[in-house]
Amino acid sequence: MLSFASDYLEGAHETILRRLTETNREQLPGYGSDPYCESAAAKIRATCEAANADVHFLVGGTQTNQIVITALLHEGEGVIAADTGHIATHEAGAIEATGHKVLTLPHHQGKVSADDLNAYLKAFNADANHEHMVLPAMLYLSHPTEYGTLYRKEELTALAAVCRQHQIPLFLDGARLGYGLMSDDTDLTLPDIAALCDVFYIGGTKVGALCGEAVVFPRGNAPKRFLTTIKRHGALLAKGRLLGIQFDTLFTDRLYFRIARHAIVMADKLKNIFREKGYTFYLESPTNQLFIVLDRETRERLSKQVNFSFWETLDNTHTVVRFATSWATTEEEIEALASLL
Amino acid sequence: MLSFASDYLEGAHETILRRLTETNREQLPGYGSDPYCESAAAKIRATCEAANADVHFLVGGTQTNQIVITALLHEGEGVIAADTGHIATHEAGAIEATGHKVLTLPHHQGKVSADDLNAYLKAFNADANHEHMVLPAMLYLSHPTEYGTLYRKEELTALAAVCRQHQIPLFLDGARLGYGLMSDDTDLTLPDIAALCDVFYIGGTKVGALCGEAVVFPRGNAPKRFLTTIKRHGALLAKGRLLGIQFDTLFTDRLYFRIARHAIVMADKLKNIFREKGYTFYLESPTNQLFIVLDRETRERLSKQVNFSFWETLDNTHTVVRFATSWATTEEEIEALASLL
Amino acid sequence: MLSFASDYLEGAHETILRRLTETNREQLPGYGSDPYCESAAAKIRATCEAANADVHFLVGGTQTNQIVITALLHEGEGVIAADTGHIATHEAGAIEATGHKVLTLPHHQGKVSADDLNAYLKAFNADANHEHMVLPAMLYLSHPTEYGTLYRKEELTALAAVCRQHQIPLFLDGARLGYGLMSDDTDLTLPDIAALCDVFYIGGTKVGALCGEAVVFPRGNAPKRFLTTIKRHGALLAKGRLLGIQFDTLFTDRLYFRIARHAIVMADKLKNIFREKGYTFYLESPTNQLFIVLDRETRERLSKQVNFSFWETLDNTHTVVRFATSWATTEEEIEALASLL
Amino acid sequence: MLSFASDYLEGAHETILRRLTETNREQLPGYGSDPYCESAAAKIRATCEAANADVHFLVGGTQTNQIVITALLHEGEGVIAADTGHIATHEAGAIEATGHKVLTLPHHQGKVSADDLNAYLKAFNADANHEHMVLPAMLYLSHPTEYGTLYRKEELTALAAVCRQHQIPLFLDGARLGYGLMSDDTDLTLPDIAALCDVFYIGGTKVGALCGEAVVFPRGNAPKRFLTTIKRHGALLAKGRLLGIQFDTLFTDRLYFRIARHAIVMADKLKNIFREKGYTFYLESPTNQLFIVLDRETRERLSKQVNFSFWETLDNTHTVVRFATSWATTEEEIEALASLL
Repeated sequence: MLSFASDYLEGAHETILRRLTETNREQLPGYGSDPYCESAAAKIRATCEAANADVHFLVGGTQTNQIVITALLHEGEGVIAADTGHIATHEAGAIEATGHKVLTLPHHQGKVSADDLNAYLKAFNADANHEHMVLPAMLYLSHPTEYGTLYRKEELTALAAVCRQHQIPLFLDGARLGYGLMSDDTDLTLPDIAALCDVFYIGGTKVGALCGEAVVFPRGNAPKRFLTTIKRHGALLAKGRLLGIQFDTLFTDRLYFRIARHAIVMADKLKNIFREKGYTFYLESPTNQLFIVLDRETRERLSKQVNFSFWETLDNTHTVVRFATSWATTEEEIEALASLL
Repeated sequence: MLSFASDYLEGAHETILRRLTETNREQLPGYGSDPYCESAAAKIRATCEAANADVHFLVGGTQTNQIVITALLHEGEGVIAADTGHIATHEAGAIEATGHKVLTLPHHQGKVSADDLNAYLKAFNADANHEHMVLPAMLYLSHPTEYGTLYRKEELTALAAVCRQHQIPLFLDGARLGYGLMSDDTDLTLPDIAALCDVFYIGGTKVGALCGEAVVFPRGNAPKRFLTTIKRHGALLAKGRLLGIQFDTLFTDRLYFRIARHAIVMADKLKNIFREKGYTFYLESPTNQLFIVLDRETRERLSKQVNFSFWETLDNTHTVVRFATSWATTEEEIEALASLL
Repeated sequence: MLSFASDYLEGAHETILRRLTETNREQLPGYGSDPYCESAAAKIRATCEAANADVHFLVGGTQTNQIVITALLHEGEGVIAADTGHIATHEAGAIEATGHKVLTLPHHQGKVSADDLNAYLKAFNADANHEHMVLPAMLYLSHPTEYGTLYRKEELTALAAVCRQHQIPLFLDGARLGYGLMSDDTDLTLPDIAALCDVFYIGGTKVGALCGEAVVFPRGNAPKRFLTTIKRHGALLAKGRLLGIQFDTLFTDRLYFRIARHAIVMADKLKNIFREKGYTFYLESPTNQLFIVLDRETRERLSKQVNFSFWETLDNTHTVVRFATSWATTEEEIEALASLL
Repeated sequence: MLSFASDYLEGAHETILRRLTETNREQLPGYGSDPYCESAAAKIRATCEAANADVHFLVGGTQTNQIVITALLHEGEGVIAADTGHIATHEAGAIEATGHKVLTLPHHQGKVSADDLNAYLKAFNADANHEHMVLPAMLYLSHPTEYGTLYRKEELTALAAVCRQHQIPLFLDGARLGYGLMSDDTDLTLPDIAALCDVFYIGGTKVGALCGEAVVFPRGNAPKRFLTTIKRHGALLAKGRLLGIQFDTLFTDRLYFRIARHAIVMADKLKNIFREKGYTFYLESPTNQLFIVLDRETRERLSKQVNFSFWETLDNTHTVVRFATSWATTEEEIEALASLL
């Protein structure tokens, strides 16, 4: 059956599988100390225009969020996120598992606003009881957000300014970063993100890799013994090459960007089709995820022929569903879906 | 200076100090195994009409919340609370320190509603992603709430029914329980609470003790090795007698209830005075805490002669403040305050 | 340079890479719910003769140890291990990160003895202070051990009997299980292990996979919400297929056992060569790891031409080093090493 | 029945009870911000000759160990202790509950040796795998130790030097500090301890208080937001006065030292009696705890008339038991015991 349920339905981009096969019998040291990890890191540094960046490769998104956040927070500190943020909703308490509270702000189409953040931090400092409260000590953003929306450069700049003023690190979850960077409707570049954030990651799992996220501390500012923190949380691959080779491939000849762009082109086609057919968009997402409002009948009819994701209930007769394109989506699939709508 | 800032301004009821002094040279075994702890527990069982109850004595409220919650939850489970609940706001992340998330529901004058709870639990179970979410596995209520309000018997009964239907324990934080039980405006008795809750505590610190909270598992349902959990969280007093003697005293001749009643009488007098003088109540609290709206000028004037607590900012010119009475409040203090209003 | 440093120097067995490539464009559901995970689990159940087993796939060994142990222990309980056990020494505190203590017993060539275990548990229960101590609530064994040694069937049976008597689960870390099962010097089969243990895992990372460990709860006894525990510890792969396809391949046509056997054959050849050349064995390991005592001069000479692992310092002039074979070791490599010895 | 089972059998020194009673109706601010806490801190600073010290008051020993250790360690770091150290044995996993491993060294009559410590830290740094291991990042000592023994000044100086060289803090658990300072056989003073340690505490619970330990960071080096850490671990007393008044009393007119001295005098008498009667000492303790070897018959006979503590089994027919004196021991009790021996 046709599926637009997510952007991780297939395996990996074929070039990655080919490179894994070509390098398979090379004997390489473990735990990320192999030359492919180093080469991948060098390419990522160059692409980010962050010559001193520390780059580490982890396996998945929740794992990365957990490890980065616990590595940067001290005893009793918390991380601020949108109330729709992945760490606040769909990570099964991975942050709390490390003893830290997720402090939530109301989202604006998935985004945190600099004004809300500033007001929150000011109010905290002014609160007579703040010594009895969790210190807000880090900001977590996702870009694209869980709603596929994007921060504009001025928005991220404003958030970074508030963070610096309050001396808290800014962490950007880029599980779908490629799709954000390749959107037609963005003015944020990877070097911008590297300049504005204290740590971020470049998602591989949802952008063509079998698995893998590249964590970047753009100013060489990884915490001491970060490798041990990775190990301690069960995230240090013995065969680090699996991640190194994948990211080395993704950052060779801009493969990462080219395949992300493809997903955007496919999403734009799909958007036009939905629009032409008179479907209602729940919100405008400029990336590879489309949020569509379906009435019950349409949902039932479509779900017999195509997989998509339930997102949320809107009212008694309408639900929001998600259609996602990816690096692997084909024109044929778009056309097949069009014929069903 | 006159102070109505809280209900823990003084030491202990004099009878407690006298009993501590009278028993001081008795050589007693440690860690809560002394006869005073046993006697206190027996009196509490009788008062709760819960003959099989397990009773443990802890030092403070946050400690008790932390220990009870972590003892009852399993790996990855969370506790539901009002968003104004003490564990959600003013315990410095004590629950998260044990790896558990606090899941919040909107409060209604400090209270959780059974309908909200039921809807939340149903939605959780219906959510396609619930395996990626923290399991709501316990309900935390405070009674009186942080706003001094009280659950009616039918409200607590409805909440308990939802908990039983979903097989999650109901935990009631009674840091100020005495003041709730002695309110004129309550239909909930201690035996009711014992019958409806799976665990609750009878607060001593704010009701006449130097320190101490009595945790009651009314059906002998304390978790296995609960004493070890207490020890592990640094809460097992070597001289458990300090708590045993205090609670034995408080539950002899209904001292706990008599002194709580006194605070209610004092609060009612104060309420009448505020009302007569035309002050605005932020909400109606039937217990020992009064929440009053003050304009800036009045607040500044009063704060020169009496201590009270800032609660929250209402608007640019008005704030909510709290005046609390206690077992120790005197008629003279009420009159002195009246003369300032 | 020639390398016998570990058994995870190469990528994956070629059949695995081929299957990953062949299935690459199939659209599959995520998080381990794909048909390859199901097929792999069915084959593992059959091979273990454990028809009701719960089988889950995780990425790495430390991760698996952390997740299984925290899922089975309650608040304040600890896990018993040999003082040489991986969880006690080389997992960067992954068990403590979940709040649990590792309680150690002296090892016997890497193994725990049933007598020691029994004595320890009896002494614990007899200790007047045991309520102030961490409850020993689980046994962790590695098989093969960190020294490449193996439990005999009667040893594992005796340990299992002690565990059952004391009602604590027995967990077997099989990161190198294939090499243990294919040793000439073992009487333990996979069905034996499934019958005797409460949970164990079949290591893939060190036996031909890119990554992956298959956790088996042989009597369908996985803890409730184990998938959520996996998610919460950042170990739930979006593309679960990566693990499913690998284990499905390894358990098709007994590939896992055949490649493990190859490593044993290679190790036996190497053992004979070392023996013939007069090298001293630190201990007799019947699996794929050889522990050799080298004097300083020999170590320096060899280390210029072949990679091996430093294990421990024996005395001022001698060290213990490890040579490991694997599924990927070739006859040519053995001969090349022989010529250097 | 006569009891020498521990040094926390009675309530508090009578002066403390009197002061609690005298100050009972004073209205004081909470959470340690009252003038008695401040006065007590000032007296402790003066006595320690540490004018800039941060002084905090906590309730009990395990709690203090947990809070100080977690406040000073970062993610994934461990604390070194003697294998007989209280945190390693009898705190129910309180340190592991905060995610930190206790790393043990073999004890020498309860003490850690500087040579062992240095060798351990050097070996750790030299270990090729140290990134996969828990970083030893703090030293925990108890003084007196669990065996009632004492560090000599040169021993503590040597340990402090190793700590400074390796840049790890030195934490001294002084649950029975008074008895150590007042021993005839010590050359360590409180100012010495303040000069050599990075943090230590002065135990009240076992030296005349109802409860309470005074934590001293002698160079004003308390971690940031230490009060919040206290709150987060459920250890912040609402009525901080309870601790402030007790320590203020203990440090007025050297009461703490005078009552500790009394226990030493009583212990010395008891020691002479045991010696005269031909009893065997398990080891020589210069403080208030005596460790005596009893054969089965003597143990049974004595235990009918006097309480003492079982310590450990020596062989089939002998056990080690502990007799403790305290601030409250009377000459009459010593004579009564003498008549039984």
